[in-house]
Amino acid sequence: MGFEFSAGKWQRLRSLTDEQGRFKMLAIDQRGSLERALSRAGGGNREITTEDMARAKEAITKILAPYSTAVLTDPLVGYPYTIQRLPPRVGLLLAHEESGYQPASAGSKERLTELIEGWTAEKAQRAGADAVKLLVYYRPDMSSEMRKHQQDLVRRVGEECLEADMPFLLELVGYALKEPGENTPEYALKKPEIVIKSAEEFSRQEYHVDILKLEFPSELKWTREFAGGAFDGKAQEAVYDLKSVRERCRELNEASGTPWVILSAGVDIEEFLTQVSLATEAGASGFLCGRAIWKDAAPLYPNMEQMEGWLCDYGVYNFLRANASAHRAMPWFRHRRFGGGEGLGLAQKGERWHREYAKAR
Amino acid sequence: MGFEFSAGKWQRLRSLTDEQGRFKMLAIDQRGSLERALSRAGGGNREITTEDMARAKEAITKILAPYSTAVLTDPLVGYPYTIQRLPPRVGLLLAHEESGYQPASAGSKERLTELIEGWTAEKAQRAGADAVKLLVYYRPDMSSEMRKHQQDLVRRVGEECLEADMPFLLELVGYALKEPGENTPEYALKKPEIVIKSAEEFSRQEYHVDILKLEFPSELKWTREFAGGAFDGKAQEAVYDLKSVRERCRELNEASGTPWVILSAGVDIEEFLTQVSLATEAGASGFLCGRAIWKDAAPLYPNMEQMEGWLCDYGVYNFLRANASAHRAMPWFRHRRFGGGEGLGLAQKGERWHREYAKAR
Repeated sequence: MGFEFSAGKWQRLRSLTDEQGRFKMLAIDQRGSLERALSRAGGGNREITTEDMARAKEAITKILAPYSTAVLTDPLVGYPYTIQRLPPRVGLLLAHEESGYQPASAGSKERLTELIEGWTAEKAQRAGADAVKLLVYYRPDMSSEMRKHQQDLVRRVGEECLEADMPFLLELVGYALKEPGENTPEYALKKPEIVIKSAEEFSRQEYHVDILKLEFPSELKWTREFAGGAFDGKAQEAVYDLKSVRERCRELNEASGTPWVILSAGVDIEEFLTQVSLATEAGASGFLCGRAIWKDAAPLYPNMEQMEGWLCDYGVYNFLRANASAHRAMPWFRHRRFGGGEGLGLAQKGERWHREYAKAR
Repeated sequence: MGFEFSAGKWQRLRSLTDEQGRFKMLAIDQRGSLERALSRAGGGNREITTEDMARAKEAITKILAPYSTAVLTDPLVGYPYTIQRLPPRVGLLLAHEESGYQPASAGSKERLTELIEGWTAEKAQRAGADAVKLLVYYRPDMSSEMRKHQQDLVRRVGEECLEADMPFLLELVGYALKEPGENTPEYALKKPEIVIKSAEEFSRQEYHVDILKLEFPSELKWTREFAGGAFDGKAQEAVYDLKSVRERCRELNEASGTPWVILSAGVDIEEFLTQVSLATEAGASGFLCGRAIWKDAAPLYPNMEQMEGWLCDYGVYNFLRANASAHRAMPWFRHRRFGGGEGLGLAQKGERWHREYAKAR
């Protein structure tokens, strides 16, 4: 059997994991959500400048990156202002999309993703990134026209990464469309299907995705076991139980045709740790997590002493716990896509390799 | 003061060091010298195939790379056949030159370097390398025409690296020209000048060198303290003493306008450890070492069990000792070129960074 990798993808994927091939990655590419959090800090409604964003990102990167196997940041502020805080031997992913989304049309709830203008996979490679990350809002049941827009976008970035021989990490995020909102029993019931079907779609080879970054395929807060308010103190009605959540995790792992990691979507840390534990139990290869780990630092801005103090005390503690929860994660190269890891090798070999590689360029 | 780095060079230089910014790097890019060693194994004179080279390189890489901060290999056999043995979080350098040298003309002792045809800094970058390495044979007193050839070659590769935003590591190796041979008192006396003046020349900004890989600027075997045969059991006459060797190391550090590492040139391990200790005491930022660490494994080929056994027992031990000898090395970013490390940052910043970066491409 075996699986053959192209040189650049293989070499860079290695840079994102721990020694066992597990992803324990920090996300600090937030723009809109971080700006809003900083703006609200201290109860105020401050105007947030690039310098504010740079200072907050620098503090978070400096203190938490040493505990990660790789850091995802953005090429707009994160890269130019905080890259000097990346420790040696920690991988780097760069975001490819503009923050947030555009409504498909006035009043539409459908969300369209936009790429960062003037940024390319080739620039990311030149700047030393180990992977391109793209976040796409997606509903398998969105209108066919808008679905095609999102699919085309992913395909385009996939081809761009293929051309540059760069790993491609695709993040898929669902949202309420016909449902009254994301924090509703209707959405909790719909979510598994959204997450699983989206993973299935973008596992197709035409998208050239190397790692999927996925939402947890259920809402733990709506399970019988946790609906009493275990995570946030708010009791609500249960719509399913933990046994079915485990089943959804297994289905998601089957749907994902490539190694996958779990994202945090800013849930509280205890809930995230449970998600990581359940996802990796089902076959996930780790996590890529931002807000669940560091979000409580943002309200302390601009008091850097307090903010850094919180990060050193609680941020590091959160990260260490997340790493421990991902302890049993599937090494990415053991994923069935690669035949379980036996016989992995390079697609191009032999004495003419160095001549043939990227000949077209 | 401060010093401003371009993005890709900075990000990749970080990947080559330990957490303190020290280089502890393994060289397994040998071609001619490894082929000769394998050929002589077992007292025979076997024909060595690509497969032989690949197997030997794979064993050495697999067993020693985990102890290194980065591995230097070649893009001909090393990369395509052994890259799957690089552990996560170990940097990668790729050789840019053909093995060995060409005589400047029939009967000439002057050595000319050739680049690997069909290989470029851009391909190295695409393949996930963190730096380009070029070995150049050089004598400051070679004929002006041949000196120009070697200088032009370095300048060309320096510009290629600048264009690709890739770190450039330049290795300089001297050789006997008017002297009767390298292992002679005449050459031992000449060597400090060769090493120091070569480092001085290629520290000029026009070559765009980021790291120099340099020979030890004296011959320890010809010092009063070690001439009795301390390293190899052969007694010879002393031509200088350790005090003057220390002085030459200091001069070399002053001559090197950029961080430098020491090479082993295949000396025995005890001699190499002393060289590392003296060089790092004078300001070197670590080592890039091959044969001094693993050369005694080659004669065991093709008995892989014996070869791997030796590497696990003695190779690893040698590497650990070399790492310990480099313990006090100067973190590369503390080099005076960078103003001692204060105020290091990126050359390009601001909100238009991502647009302006590599605009020309």
